[in-house]
Amino acid sequence: MVITKTIKVDSKKELDMINITDKVQDAVGRSGAKTGTVTIFVPGATGAITAIEYENGLLKDFAGALEKIAPKHLDYEHHKKWDDDNGRSHVKASLIGPDMTVPFKDKKLILGTWQAIVFVELDTRPREREIILQILGE
Amino acid sequence: MVITKTIKVDSKKELDMINITDKVQDAVGRSGAKTGTVTIFVPGATGAITAIEYENGLLKDFAGALEKIAPKHLDYEHHKKWDDDNGRSHVKASLIGPDMTVPFKDKKLILGTWQAIVFVELDTRPREREIILQILGE
Amino acid sequence: MVITKTIKVDSKKELDMINITDKVQDAVGRSGAKTGTVTIFVPGATGAITAIEYENGLLKDFAGALEKIAPKHLDYEHHKKWDDDNGRSHVKASLIGPDMTVPFKDKKLILGTWQAIVFVELDTRPREREIILQILGE
Repeated sequence: MVITKTIKVDSKKELDMINITDKVQDAVGRSGAKTGTVTIFVPGATGAITAIEYENGLLKDFAGALEKIAPKHLDYEHHKKWDDDNGRSHVKASLIGPDMTVPFKDKKLILGTWQAIVFVELDTRPREREIILQILGE
Repeated sequence: MVITKTIKVDSKKELDMINITDKVQDAVGRSGAKTGTVTIFVPGATGAITAIEYENGLLKDFAGALEKIAPKHLDYEHHKKWDDDNGRSHVKASLIGPDMTVPFKDKKLILGTWQAIVFVELDTRPREREIILQILGE
Repeated sequence: MVITKTIKVDSKKELDMINITDKVQDAVGRSGAKTGTVTIFVPGATGAITAIEYENGLLKDFAGALEKIAPKHLDYEHHKKWDDDNGRSHVKASLIGPDMTVPFKDKKLILGTWQAIVFVELDTRPREREIILQILGE
């Protein structure tokens, strides 16, 4: 059985990390499937999905590491194309990736105690995002 | 229902990024499944799958960030084993990962407007690659 | 059909990389499914799953690249919260990701010749880990 659900999130700024664990659990719980996987996918080239302990200090640490990988003040080739300012956003998004697949059993996501599912806003401005949950199970 | 399809691509050089979105969409469209997921997987330790806005400037930016993570001129331990030259290729491939899972509905991949599925050649020479599409759906 | 299996591994130290390919293949082979996908998932915020050529030199190269991304001697904000010492562990884990999905056919994982599935221990101390295998197939 395949069930498609959608989560809407409004990001506030660049590197906003939004905890969507409860929303994913809720969708899985209501899907009718007892066991299976949920693929969490952001249709957008400047957002990403990953897992993290959702603690403010750590969110800053993660943002700091991403800034070193694709710093704000580099001259990105991408900016020449569209007069855009989000070259760094794309680079980070392609590295983390737009998808994550999480198993569930007895209608419950199998996650570690401190492990949250997060949407990472990498774009340089606030965005309204629609995140897809594709639930496969029985 | 599970359907396995294969895509063949010939990479031209290191850091060649090949847009396979249309081929994945075509395989999903012909699979007979209306809704589900497609897992795109490269069987090979020096290639990777990710999503990116397929624009030449950005492809250079992404390659540049990868070069910083695993620079060309480092002495890689891996080279001592096989007299190989592709330590950096492996490091980048393991970081990006060989797999991506994308949802589809009504036979269409759910992707952002600018979001392309790409195979990233990380090896130091051109390669003939076979990419696996595992389609799960109904 | 959905089958859940569990793999137990004991990591010996930080950056221990454990080859779990044979265990995943064994679980898939015994699952009863002929074709499908296996999602390998670590429920824990300081571990990760990826693919790599399992060769000692390369494991060191990969560890070296991760150390540059999240160095040992930085002051992590995360340490202020719990008096913890594993900020770097979390940063690396969130970048690599806790999941990988691998296709199989005729009960065999579709992997490259040199491509192994590994659990990466990123925490600063040895851990007993339970890795989830969610097998979807027919």
